[in-house]
Amino acid sequence: MDNLAYDQILLDHGSGGKLSHALTRDLVLPHLSNDLLDQLDDGAVFDLKGGRLAFSTDSYTVDPLFFPGGDIGELAINGTVNDLAMCGAKPLYLSLALIIEEGFPTADLERILASVRESANAAGVKVVTGDTKVVPKGAVDRIFINTAGIGLVDTGVSVGGHLARPGDRIILSGSIADHGITVMTQREGLAASDALASDTASLNHMVADMLASSKNIHVLRDPTRGGLGTTLNEIAQQSRVGMRIGEAKILVRPEVAGVCELLGFDPLYLANEGKLIALVAPEDAPEVLAAMHRDPAGQEAAIIGEVVAQPPGRVILETAIGGERIVDMLTGEQLPRIC
Amino acid sequence: MDNLAYDQILLDHGSGGKLSHALTRDLVLPHLSNDLLDQLDDGAVFDLKGGRLAFSTDSYTVDPLFFPGGDIGELAINGTVNDLAMCGAKPLYLSLALIIEEGFPTADLERILASVRESANAAGVKVVTGDTKVVPKGAVDRIFINTAGIGLVDTGVSVGGHLARPGDRIILSGSIADHGITVMTQREGLAASDALASDTASLNHMVADMLASSKNIHVLRDPTRGGLGTTLNEIAQQSRVGMRIGEAKILVRPEVAGVCELLGFDPLYLANEGKLIALVAPEDAPEVLAAMHRDPAGQEAAIIGEVVAQPPGRVILETAIGGERIVDMLTGEQLPRIC
Repeated sequence: MDNLAYDQILLDHGSGGKLSHALTRDLVLPHLSNDLLDQLDDGAVFDLKGGRLAFSTDSYTVDPLFFPGGDIGELAINGTVNDLAMCGAKPLYLSLALIIEEGFPTADLERILASVRESANAAGVKVVTGDTKVVPKGAVDRIFINTAGIGLVDTGVSVGGHLARPGDRIILSGSIADHGITVMTQREGLAASDALASDTASLNHMVADMLASSKNIHVLRDPTRGGLGTTLNEIAQQSRVGMRIGEAKILVRPEVAGVCELLGFDPLYLANEGKLIALVAPEDAPEVLAAMHRDPAGQEAAIIGEVVAQPPGRVILETAIGGERIVDMLTGEQLPRIC
Repeated sequence: MDNLAYDQILLDHGSGGKLSHALTRDLVLPHLSNDLLDQLDDGAVFDLKGGRLAFSTDSYTVDPLFFPGGDIGELAINGTVNDLAMCGAKPLYLSLALIIEEGFPTADLERILASVRESANAAGVKVVTGDTKVVPKGAVDRIFINTAGIGLVDTGVSVGGHLARPGDRIILSGSIADHGITVMTQREGLAASDALASDTASLNHMVADMLASSKNIHVLRDPTRGGLGTTLNEIAQQSRVGMRIGEAKILVRPEVAGVCELLGFDPLYLANEGKLIALVAPEDAPEVLAAMHRDPAGQEAAIIGEVVAQPPGRVILETAIGGERIVDMLTGEQLPRIC
């Protein structure tokens, strides 16, 4: 295998010529081979029964590339799988575009590709088309990844950020801020609890069970960049509704809460990579919660509040000590390159 | 508009919070607004009649960002539109993912977005979903763009790199090496002819006319990175056929040929961004050529050679002075960051 001759990625690996083909054949395909990707045409072509399609994209620039609980490859698959699931879609096909800095260790690329494969298998999606660019030293920090994805939305499913209604229960699938705090402490070399780990996970199987359990799920959203606080504000603005949430009902792991307190971070604004928010008609909330509890990703799902009519666009937190405060959208950047 | 308060992109513009929303609302949507993108959900959801779908992606890292004949925004649209067209598809929907370096001039971003809009309009495609990341200074060189795209392949259309057959005519849509030489001379600050310009263009309308003119187009491919020489080798390998092409039939503009000779570049290996190769059954070649000549992008289309049975995987160039030489795949990287 040609790749064994190189322990670093060279500019030539991005030339489009011989070494580019060797990289694809010897490194990428052994991990990601499938009948569509193997064709190596300019794109993948496949049959899809007609219907409602979901289409989404995200770039991943996380630093460090490897962290407790995951790595950039796993994030890149789970992130786009989850974005499709939040559209109410069953994710099917993904693209994978790598931008690699000259000199990047081949072993690290192999590790990332193995992680891409495992995450794609776990989510039940296929990487069917891709692109690899290699840029000179200094033009990118090690490796950035973009994925885009296509999913199918079943008839009868209609979710969207503009569909929240007063009375809807706000369900959160588990603890918050795990990903943000883990990546931040790793990057800054802070001595933190060994218990910290990213929550990165694909949520599409849980979402499929949730959608099967109720026709009255109005909004699905994963609180990634900007965190739970920003995501709830987005929905409140899109739907022109208010929200009331209870601080005591929002799960923050003690080790995460400890680091947040020490460093002055608000867990409401830290990124999550394996959590979702569902806004559900009150009569269906028990069934949806039960479906979530049956899934590994939803063991700790709980109702954290509800949608109210007034004041539109405003999210109110009932604090643990009995007060109230407005939860605004994130202002300023707490943690760049978190995903 | 919030964006007028900032003449540079800040890290906060990528936070997922308030400034991220301002960037999307005040900079992106004014250029790219459409009913699907405006929803601002995690992905776009749309109806598509069933059938064969094409799906493709590419990242764009070109340096310089602006060059005679185009810019990174136009490349990002045309490149993915063309990849879909090369699958025999009608391109419909694109994603747009920006990775921006902190401090990037807002005016340059506006100019790129305007270019994205114009190119998408010209190609008749919609940008329906996107992502913006901002990374700290030094983590990326100014701006990289990824696009992915979805297109529909009509019933009866079947093109692919593995479908070339002995006897097929090899049609090239116009002159080669314009893009590669233009970007290279601009980047290196070489005094070159004012006549040099990138050929970046969307080819999907021409491809639609070509496919309407013949059921016997076997291969469509755009010779981007690696150039005509590498692309022909790819097809020869995928289809296990040989090829013979005539040097005298391959158009190289005099100003391009001059720079190539001066600097020792072989135009066969330089990137094109608005050209295609079609491999067509001999009886249909006249109709396909006629269809190409009716399109602005195919005015100079010509048959440059034909597919032969032996030796498989080998491309032979009949030189202008009557000799023969093997055209191998590009080895080594001539020009990084050409697209």
